[in-house]
Amino acid sequence: MIYLDHAAATPVSAKVLQAMEPYFREKFFNPSAAYLPAKEVSAKYEEAKNTIAHAIGAKGNDLVMTAGATEANNLGFTVLEPGDKALVLETEHDSVRRIITQNRQFSTRSHGEFIGVDETGRIRLEDLRDKLDDSVKLISVSLANNELGIIQPLAEIAEIIREVRFDRLRRGVKRPILFHTDASQALNLLNINVARLGVDMMTINAAKVYGPKGVGALYVGHEVRLSPLSVGGGQEKGLRAGTENVPGVIGFATAITEAQSHLNGNRKKYAKWKKLFLDNLNDYTLINRGKTLDNFIVICYDGLDAERLIFLLEERGVYVATGAACAASKGVGSHVLAAIHLSASKIAGSLRITLGETNDETQIIEAAKIINEVVDAERKRVNG
Amino acid sequence: MIYLDHAAATPVSAKVLQAMEPYFREKFFNPSAAYLPAKEVSAKYEEAKNTIAHAIGAKGNDLVMTAGATEANNLGFTVLEPGDKALVLETEHDSVRRIITQNRQFSTRSHGEFIGVDETGRIRLEDLRDKLDDSVKLISVSLANNELGIIQPLAEIAEIIREVRFDRLRRGVKRPILFHTDASQALNLLNINVARLGVDMMTINAAKVYGPKGVGALYVGHEVRLSPLSVGGGQEKGLRAGTENVPGVIGFATAITEAQSHLNGNRKKYAKWKKLFLDNLNDYTLINRGKTLDNFIVICYDGLDAERLIFLLEERGVYVATGAACAASKGVGSHVLAAIHLSASKIAGSLRITLGETNDETQIIEAAKIINEVVDAERKRVNG
Repeated sequence: MIYLDHAAATPVSAKVLQAMEPYFREKFFNPSAAYLPAKEVSAKYEEAKNTIAHAIGAKGNDLVMTAGATEANNLGFTVLEPGDKALVLETEHDSVRRIITQNRQFSTRSHGEFIGVDETGRIRLEDLRDKLDDSVKLISVSLANNELGIIQPLAEIAEIIREVRFDRLRRGVKRPILFHTDASQALNLLNINVARLGVDMMTINAAKVYGPKGVGALYVGHEVRLSPLSVGGGQEKGLRAGTENVPGVIGFATAITEAQSHLNGNRKKYAKWKKLFLDNLNDYTLINRGKTLDNFIVICYDGLDAERLIFLLEERGVYVATGAACAASKGVGSHVLAAIHLSASKIAGSLRITLGETNDETQIIEAAKIINEVVDAERKRVNG
Repeated sequence: MIYLDHAAATPVSAKVLQAMEPYFREKFFNPSAAYLPAKEVSAKYEEAKNTIAHAIGAKGNDLVMTAGATEANNLGFTVLEPGDKALVLETEHDSVRRIITQNRQFSTRSHGEFIGVDETGRIRLEDLRDKLDDSVKLISVSLANNELGIIQPLAEIAEIIREVRFDRLRRGVKRPILFHTDASQALNLLNINVARLGVDMMTINAAKVYGPKGVGALYVGHEVRLSPLSVGGGQEKGLRAGTENVPGVIGFATAITEAQSHLNGNRKKYAKWKKLFLDNLNDYTLINRGKTLDNFIVICYDGLDAERLIFLLEERGVYVATGAACAASKGVGSHVLAAIHLSASKIAGSLRITLGETNDETQIIEAAKIINEVVDAERKRVNG
């Protein structure tokens, strides 16, 4: 098996699983209980939150733990009150896009608009500037896109936001302007620091960094006022009720620490593997260009059907994707590839390959060879 | 260690952990991905949902998986639209109560009222009848209370609701009337069947049945229309976005199957242990009477401080609670014990003891002995 879809899911690392295990059975106590073993669990939970926060340059108290990135994104958008507008990059993950297109609660009280991207998928800063009127309270731009791996210039966006903030202050406009980023895909490869990036909220996700599924967090800056999506026992300072997922959060702490301590090594390794892969690949068009995550390779075989390629590659033990897994399952074309103005036939022939810790050099070369063979055969079949 | 707080948390059983383990590392694929191993994971996930649903007399398609009971309760209440009223038992868990007292979204569009209980904590059906005006769309009554273990007469409530439904139909009142129950505490001891109980929605929770924390579900009857709390990749039929917590749901399936297949044995065992415990206990007042879960024992030592008793018992290795863990951590008196008109001094002297799978007969006798000693010493200290 050669798994090349690490943007969709990563296995829990042995180290992470080992860290989680004691908290399933021995240290199972409810962190809110009054007796010592429960208080010890609570302390370990808070320590894990501090560790996670530390990895992104924040404090444990600034994090609201969630059941994943989707919930964290949705929680971030509760900052909007009636009349507020949100600006969202058109290539964002559905868990951000759909808040403004589908969520009933949202549409009855706030409205949203998309910011466009250039042909590489990078934010068009002039479009952002144009749309930044006084009704805008929230801007959401992922640190790295989940289909292209393109890295957005968050610091530049933050600078524009800072200017707007000053201008509003000067003109007496009371509405704050806040910056949210979904950093889920970036944690393995980019050094993340909320202050340096200039964001007020950041979504992170354990399942993309060899941690458990169903665990994420929202970093919430001090000036941000959110409403809980769920109320109850008052956990997470009242912002996210429910008994804490102790093993999950402990696992996330180990996972993000591992990810952030191997950044340089990872970057070098994946850059090398990406080159090795492309060097061994015949007659492809590289779709994701510019500044991208080193483990993201989006290639296009114009005229071929990527869905069929996935099936043929699967038969050879190579697992790749057409785009986001959750979009793929619904059989809709990628809104991300459409946003960078790829033709329908190119979108239909595009594969997303995301390298990761389950791979090695032999696999990379072998995968390129198998893809070449499958593509050649398929081209012959299609062209008769 | 003698752990007597199984209503707050249960350890993951060995069998459950074993069922979960392959899904952390080997079978880690995103269930939405297009290739075969991911589809196999997806099939196992759906199979687990079917198993969970089957345990409560439902189908997998009727379940929305959540991150726990709190989220499931909150999701259930999204059935309310502007102008709708909810009736909630005053002794419900905070994750139900606070939806109507604290949730900003709720209060701007709907309103809620409490239904009273009698001195045992049982619903006052005449109070329910009195409050059932045409604005009521939702009634929420837990199957078994989380502090007293008192079992509510759901079938009787459902019968009243059925009458109201007919009456509304006859009078041309369009508003539906729906019945929700939080069954989290009951899964180990009561045979649960949504049809027989007559409920339209039911909250269940893995963490109370020796399954993992952070996993729950809402059973949603066919006539119920909910709004998602979080939107995104369209998972759970669009009602709960986010990559599925595959290991968690697999674990829940094993846990609930275990719980529901040992009901008779569990009931006999806990009834016997409860009697054994009380037979060995001196000079206590039993607070939870009537039809209660066999593993719930609420006792009162009037004039003593239960918080201090917890601390003294902890020093002897016995772990008990004053009430719900999440309430205890905030140092507020129990709203449940207040609702059954216990005096402040009795509330302050009450302990909740919940037996479970970590116990055995020797522990039960030993715990009673230690509690007797601690209470005796404390009474001497207090009375000089």
